Amino acid sequence: MFKNILIIGCGMIGSSILRGVISQKLCKSVYVFEKNINYQKQIKKINKKIILIKELDEKIKDIDLLVISTPMSEYKNIINNLNKYLTNKTLITDVGSTRVNVAKLIKQKLSKKLNWIMSHPISGSEASGPKYGSKNLFKNKWCILTKTNKNKLLEKKLFNFWQKLGSKVLFMHENEHDRIFSVTSHLPHLVAFNLIKTAQDFQKLHKKNIIKYSAGGLRDFSRIAASNEIMWRDVFFNNSKNISKIIDLFIKNLENFKTDINKKRNSLLLEKLKKSKQVREQILLLKQDISKPDFGREN
Amino acid sequence: MFKNILIIGCGMIGSSILRGVISQKLCKSVYVFEKNINYQKQIKKINKKIILIKELDEKIKDIDLLVISTPMSEYKNIINNLNKYLTNKTLITDVGSTRVNVAKLIKQKLSKKLNWIMSHPISGSEASGPKYGSKNLFKNKWCILTKTNKNKLLEKKLFNFWQKLGSKVLFMHENEHDRIFSVTSHLPHLVAFNLIKTAQDFQKLHKKNIIKYSAGGLRDFSRIAASNEIMWRDVFFNNSKNISKIIDLFIKNLENFKTDINKKRNSLLLEKLKKSKQVREQILLLKQDISKPDFGREN
Repeated sequence: MFKNILIIGCGMIGSSILRGVISQKLCKSVYVFEKNINYQKQIKKINKKIILIKELDEKIKDIDLLVISTPMSEYKNIINNLNKYLTNKTLITDVGSTRVNVAKLIKQKLSKKLNWIMSHPISGSEASGPKYGSKNLFKNKWCILTKTNKNKLLEKKLFNFWQKLGSKVLFMHENEHDRIFSVTSHLPHLVAFNLIKTAQDFQKLHKKNIIKYSAGGLRDFSRIAASNEIMWRDVFFNNSKNISKIIDLFIKNLENFKTDINKKRNSLLLEKLKKSKQVREQILLLKQDISKPDFGREN
Repeated sequence: MFKNILIIGCGMIGSSILRGVISQKLCKSVYVFEKNINYQKQIKKINKKIILIKELDEKIKDIDLLVISTPMSEYKNIINNLNKYLTNKTLITDVGSTRVNVAKLIKQKLSKKLNWIMSHPISGSEASGPKYGSKNLFKNKWCILTKTNKNKLLEKKLFNFWQKLGSKVLFMHENEHDRIFSVTSHLPHLVAFNLIKTAQDFQKLHKKNIIKYSAGGLRDFSRIAASNEIMWRDVFFNNSKNISKIIDLFIKNLENFKTDINKKRNSLLLEKLKKSKQVREQILLLKQDISKPDFGREN
């Protein structure tokens, strides 16, 4: 499908692409640029065919597909090298979680002759590093691409690439993307971080170890809140306007819940609690989770 | 261990006790009082030895251990029957999720001659109904008892009972219990309900189906928010003071996060995001979850 692919930044997501590419035989040669020495060692173990490169220099000029899977805060530096060494023959993509900022960066900094079509595979976990990657990470998961209307052929190629990795692919405008994912992804993560912070504050205040009783609900949030801090800092900073708005709605709703509870508004509260089951039913219908009750995972 | 046991209210938790009691052979005869006709059918399928009773009348007078696993809002009615038909020979317990209100109810309404020692097994899931119960539900989970200092022998018996079902048992004062679990259980559930409500409001506002992109974080919250509304209404109403306080701390922290994000306070935000990993490490150390990354559950 491609002669050669270069993956820049090869953590959990990058190494999952790497594994998928090798397993699906999507290119003849696969190159990786990864600065972290520990990660380099883990990557070498994945497959002998992987070629680790040490610099983003003239050697990258013949790359067909270049996938950037570093934290978004590193894009700026990377773009400088792309401008220097690439031509319009290379299809550039990335896997960042916010899109408006990257669209802006591309417009402002990327050489006009180059082709960058953004991808956002909606998959991941709290784990960081290439040893946690999986060739099946993208299977049946959404991958959101953003049209550039510059090169239809390359858009089609990128679409097929993600499909081969198992994704359900669709195009979405960057504004819509950032608005939707502020609700379905960014707010849930922020809320998880905030819940853990609140539990820590409570512990400090009451000088009590309460974490050991976490099985009652805190557990799942602690997992989400163990996600990579660089990646999430980048997401929060880059989508701050949408996130601010949805935080405000969240707080307004939470204040209302507090009033319902304190004023013992029985039927209103029951109605609200019941209504959230509709979302669950939809998620099960969409096969994004299974209906089997989750009693926690066994050691 | 007991001659006979009666379980009043036999949903997910009650039927798990039932299964555990039968599997561990903790009594000669096991009785169930359950008003829901569908549940009755499911209970009959568990084991032929189970005796379903239709009334809480004089037939209950020789019960050794009586376990109440109904929503807490039903306790008041049940107590009337206990006062009429029981003697001090019966050990009464329950499995409610808040304790101060039940301690008060016992003090005010239960006949002084009767023995009720409260239990709170810290286990459950979003599922409701006896078909979801499991004899292993309590395995390696906390069960919090509250001392009455009235009858040490019965306290010891109840302690052993839960240990036989696999629980790690400890005693805790009702005030401390309600304060701790407002943070580790009640707030996480309320936050999950509130997050789903916020996503629903957003959908309505923007006339957009966003739930289908839930794989990015909303999914796990939707599971928690699918929990039984009667049970949680009771919890929120009965522990409203502690919950109100912790909601206030949660909102204060979330407002701070918002400011960090909007003002791009880089090192402060990174520090906060990183710090929540400490809780995760503690939870893994306590073996309340496994370190394997969670990529979602497969169909």
